[in-house]
Amino acid sequence: MKFLKDLFSDHKDKLKRNPLKEKIFEIIFESDTYYGKIFNIALLSLILISVGLVMMESVASINMRYHKLLVVFEWIITVLFTIEYALRIYSTRKPIRYIFSFYGIVDLLSILPTYLGIIYPSTKYLASLRILRLLRIFRIFKLTQFLRGGNTILIALQRSRAKIVVFLSFIILIVVVIGSLMYIIEGKHPESGFTSIPTSIYWAVVTLTTVGYGDLAPVTALGKFLSSVVMIIGYGVIAVPTGFITAEVIRKKSIPEPRENTQVCQNCHDSNHLDGAKYCKTCGFPLHRDMES
Amino acid sequence: MKFLKDLFSDHKDKLKRNPLKEKIFEIIFESDTYYGKIFNIALLSLILISVGLVMMESVASINMRYHKLLVVFEWIITVLFTIEYALRIYSTRKPIRYIFSFYGIVDLLSILPTYLGIIYPSTKYLASLRILRLLRIFRIFKLTQFLRGGNTILIALQRSRAKIVVFLSFIILIVVVIGSLMYIIEGKHPESGFTSIPTSIYWAVVTLTTVGYGDLAPVTALGKFLSSVVMIIGYGVIAVPTGFITAEVIRKKSIPEPRENTQVCQNCHDSNHLDGAKYCKTCGFPLHRDMES
Amino acid sequence: MKFLKDLFSDHKDKLKRNPLKEKIFEIIFESDTYYGKIFNIALLSLILISVGLVMMESVASINMRYHKLLVVFEWIITVLFTIEYALRIYSTRKPIRYIFSFYGIVDLLSILPTYLGIIYPSTKYLASLRILRLLRIFRIFKLTQFLRGGNTILIALQRSRAKIVVFLSFIILIVVVIGSLMYIIEGKHPESGFTSIPTSIYWAVVTLTTVGYGDLAPVTALGKFLSSVVMIIGYGVIAVPTGFITAEVIRKKSIPEPRENTQVCQNCHDSNHLDGAKYCKTCGFPLHRDMES
Amino acid sequence: MKFLKDLFSDHKDKLKRNPLKEKIFEIIFESDTYYGKIFNIALLSLILISVGLVMMESVASINMRYHKLLVVFEWIITVLFTIEYALRIYSTRKPIRYIFSFYGIVDLLSILPTYLGIIYPSTKYLASLRILRLLRIFRIFKLTQFLRGGNTILIALQRSRAKIVVFLSFIILIVVVIGSLMYIIEGKHPESGFTSIPTSIYWAVVTLTTVGYGDLAPVTALGKFLSSVVMIIGYGVIAVPTGFITAEVIRKKSIPEPRENTQVCQNCHDSNHLDGAKYCKTCGFPLHRDMES
Repeated sequence: MKFLKDLFSDHKDKLKRNPLKEKIFEIIFESDTYYGKIFNIALLSLILISVGLVMMESVASINMRYHKLLVVFEWIITVLFTIEYALRIYSTRKPIRYIFSFYGIVDLLSILPTYLGIIYPSTKYLASLRILRLLRIFRIFKLTQFLRGGNTILIALQRSRAKIVVFLSFIILIVVVIGSLMYIIEGKHPESGFTSIPTSIYWAVVTLTTVGYGDLAPVTALGKFLSSVVMIIGYGVIAVPTGFITAEVIRKKSIPEPRENTQVCQNCHDSNHLDGAKYCKTCGFPLHRDMES
Repeated sequence: MKFLKDLFSDHKDKLKRNPLKEKIFEIIFESDTYYGKIFNIALLSLILISVGLVMMESVASINMRYHKLLVVFEWIITVLFTIEYALRIYSTRKPIRYIFSFYGIVDLLSILPTYLGIIYPSTKYLASLRILRLLRIFRIFKLTQFLRGGNTILIALQRSRAKIVVFLSFIILIVVVIGSLMYIIEGKHPESGFTSIPTSIYWAVVTLTTVGYGDLAPVTALGKFLSSVVMIIGYGVIAVPTGFITAEVIRKKSIPEPRENTQVCQNCHDSNHLDGAKYCKTCGFPLHRDMES
Repeated sequence: MKFLKDLFSDHKDKLKRNPLKEKIFEIIFESDTYYGKIFNIALLSLILISVGLVMMESVASINMRYHKLLVVFEWIITVLFTIEYALRIYSTRKPIRYIFSFYGIVDLLSILPTYLGIIYPSTKYLASLRILRLLRIFRIFKLTQFLRGGNTILIALQRSRAKIVVFLSFIILIVVVIGSLMYIIEGKHPESGFTSIPTSIYWAVVTLTTVGYGDLAPVTALGKFLSSVVMIIGYGVIAVPTGFITAEVIRKKSIPEPRENTQVCQNCHDSNHLDGAKYCKTCGFPLHRDMES
Repeated sequence: MKFLKDLFSDHKDKLKRNPLKEKIFEIIFESDTYYGKIFNIALLSLILISVGLVMMESVASINMRYHKLLVVFEWIITVLFTIEYALRIYSTRKPIRYIFSFYGIVDLLSILPTYLGIIYPSTKYLASLRILRLLRIFRIFKLTQFLRGGNTILIALQRSRAKIVVFLSFIILIVVVIGSLMYIIEGKHPESGFTSIPTSIYWAVVTLTTVGYGDLAPVTALGKFLSSVVMIIGYGVIAVPTGFITAEVIRKKSIPEPRENTQVCQNCHDSNHLDGAKYCKTCGFPLHRDMES
């Protein structure tokens, strides 16, 4: 069966296929096969451990005690991730496509910080960006139900795009205007903390979004009055995006989505293939056999 | 009538029934009968008083003055609750089922802290978990209208489960990424309080959810700018769960729910039996006579 | 015309009518007539001025300078309001009904504090409750469109009553449980401010509602972690009441409401009579002539 | 073609047309033509630069170093904006109409502060109001999709007007009442910061809107209890405007809006003309030729 598929695909793409490359691809990029599943679960665990290590390193009391241990582990994991990244580039047919895909960039970002940390020490904490690699979790465990949940959110956001842009523009205009006014009102009172217009704009954002740290707070009567107005605006304005997102969600016609598998095309890096699909839906390149079918 | 029911049920469950056990069960677990109602109202009052006592004990000024009195009352109530817990186990036909049911665990949690408090003093304050026992209030007073309100909320939450998981994952990813970035930006300024990545992640949660304590606040210009972006994201993102919950609530077909009584099956601890039901809808065990029917 | 109406109404209520009483009633309670309009606008202005005076008196710097003036004005207004209150009681046919109506209580509350202030000085600031008298503004200016807006809100709230009760119970349970846990975790660290369970419950409310003063904030790692969970719950839970209110509003069938006038029945204090109505819709007592008809 | 149009329009408005005036109008007010586009992009850039300069000037450390440079640039830009403002008045046929239109006022507000700054120094920071000029951006770049997004928001807000007024009145009444009560409760404790009723009302707004700076926070038990109630009210009340905005958005029938161009009528300052329109839809005055048609 596999032989036949290989035969046909060779006809199609006129390229000699490399069984080792394919095996590596199957294990690293897919989680339908037995070894693929094991590899991916190991990878996810390693990512979690690694993020935990980075966090621990940043805590002074832990770092003082276990500094050496943490550094050693950190380097072991980084080397493993580097090898994995190299294998991903090696095994795919279109490395450039992988490198500049979302996951390709995330994979690179999860090894770079440790190397850069040799030169710029504080950079190494960026290694916690590795947590973004966990996004693969939904595909690996076939949590398509959750993927669909995510899709629905994305679609609703996308449809409300124009309104979101208008809303953000409005927010930016309002915080600049209010920030400037507050600077003129409160700027003479150094105890209020309104030391410049950018700082006052920061305060306006803190207030309008109802966060309210209190590191900056008006001290004059006029400043307090204007703040109250800003707060009530912010309190009411929050209704606007909610109203639009809700309307989009209700309007949306629910399209039944078929069960997808976790395979990634070795040629064009397209994913979301249907269960049982034999060829890539985008480039026609043969997909690997689904372990369960 | 009762005799006949008993007769039939004996045929059904092939078990000799114990009238004392049944009487206790009727009083403790049901509130349709006269004594059951009295018992349950007394119990609810005792729970409220007891939670009040635990709170008072935690207030230094009150505790100093009335320490002995509070301890005595605390122990009297705990002993009463312990007796009640023992009777509940004794009177039910399937003690294991009761012990591991939600209410069984809550009932145990409401007596354990006082005993554990002998060894670990601070544990005794957990006795305020007794307040969870009040959840029975809705069933006891036949507040089915409110139960239905609660059900509707639960159903809406359950249907949105996939979206909630995706949403929470997104929130976790975002706070880890932002927390790490803020640690790199603000970490060198000890007055800002960003002393480690976990602390910065805590700050990110405080900011994204628009709580904004102000115990940690950015001091650098870049930190303030990134904070502003996080706040605006948090302010807008709140629209997403709202949109989905609202859509679920609207989509929901309102099913007319019949009036339920407050009886609990002595055999399988199933509740929510219909008014006038004579046998448990789940295991066929005869239920007690409804006082009102 | 008026003569005829009076004749008929006398037949109806078998009571001799007092023209002075009626005139006073017309001016004080109604704003359709010329003098009624003037009286009510004067009254509203006086209320606003009076609330402003109470506020000014509470500001130390203003009070020091103008204390005597403020006290004199305060007493003049209070005496005027007292006379008005007496006239309201005198002119209505059912004084008891007026006294215990919502506006009757508000009218009393707006004069009592000043008198009580002689004995308990701080009580006099309650005089700012006079602002509630402004609620009449909507009826006086025939802002029925806005009244309807208010009604829609009230109806939506009323229909969601059961869900609101369940929601509040849930909030209370959650803050008691979380408050107790936080007291056990943070109570040993006096710098955190978690000095008792009630204080910790207050913190839990401050956090769950995303207010976040920062007067209390966790200092331990575990406390910060639990806080983060509480915040995310609070952030998501806000979606629940919004969802239900929205659903109610959408479900609501909009009933066209006819234009109402501002008359109040002298006999039963019912308001919201239709424009052009000649008799009270509730007790049949004749209403005053509408100035505009 | 243009000649014919000019001919006809002359018949219409019985006024000799001034080619220079028209050319200036075309460049300044319209962005369909080549020069108009260039002019408007240059203008937008200048506005952004100018707002940036004002902000930089307010930052003490930057101002100390580059004070002279900033002042020079500020004056160059202000002079350019003044010339532009003069040309706008000169080229339009109805200057009064332009001067009192929204954009006319914004254009004036963006030059006035610098001149006023000579007399009242702090006034010059109002120059950041120039950012409002950016509102033209949507019309200039034909971002009609976004304009429509804005329109939808405005329509939803307008239809909810009555409810918004009622809601705001309710908020104002509630904060005055709560502020007064809190002043009576907390006023005796100077460390709480509730020094006057207006300050307490400010606190009530900060709390009800869930901003929560923490510059004022209750210290008494009763104050904390009342605060908790206010917070829960505020937390729930936010659902009301959201519910109404959402309902409005859903109810709205989406009217297909035709593509509009960016021309402004030289005679009556009406904008939003249809693509390809040759005469002003409001006053019949001929419009300029659309570059693209």
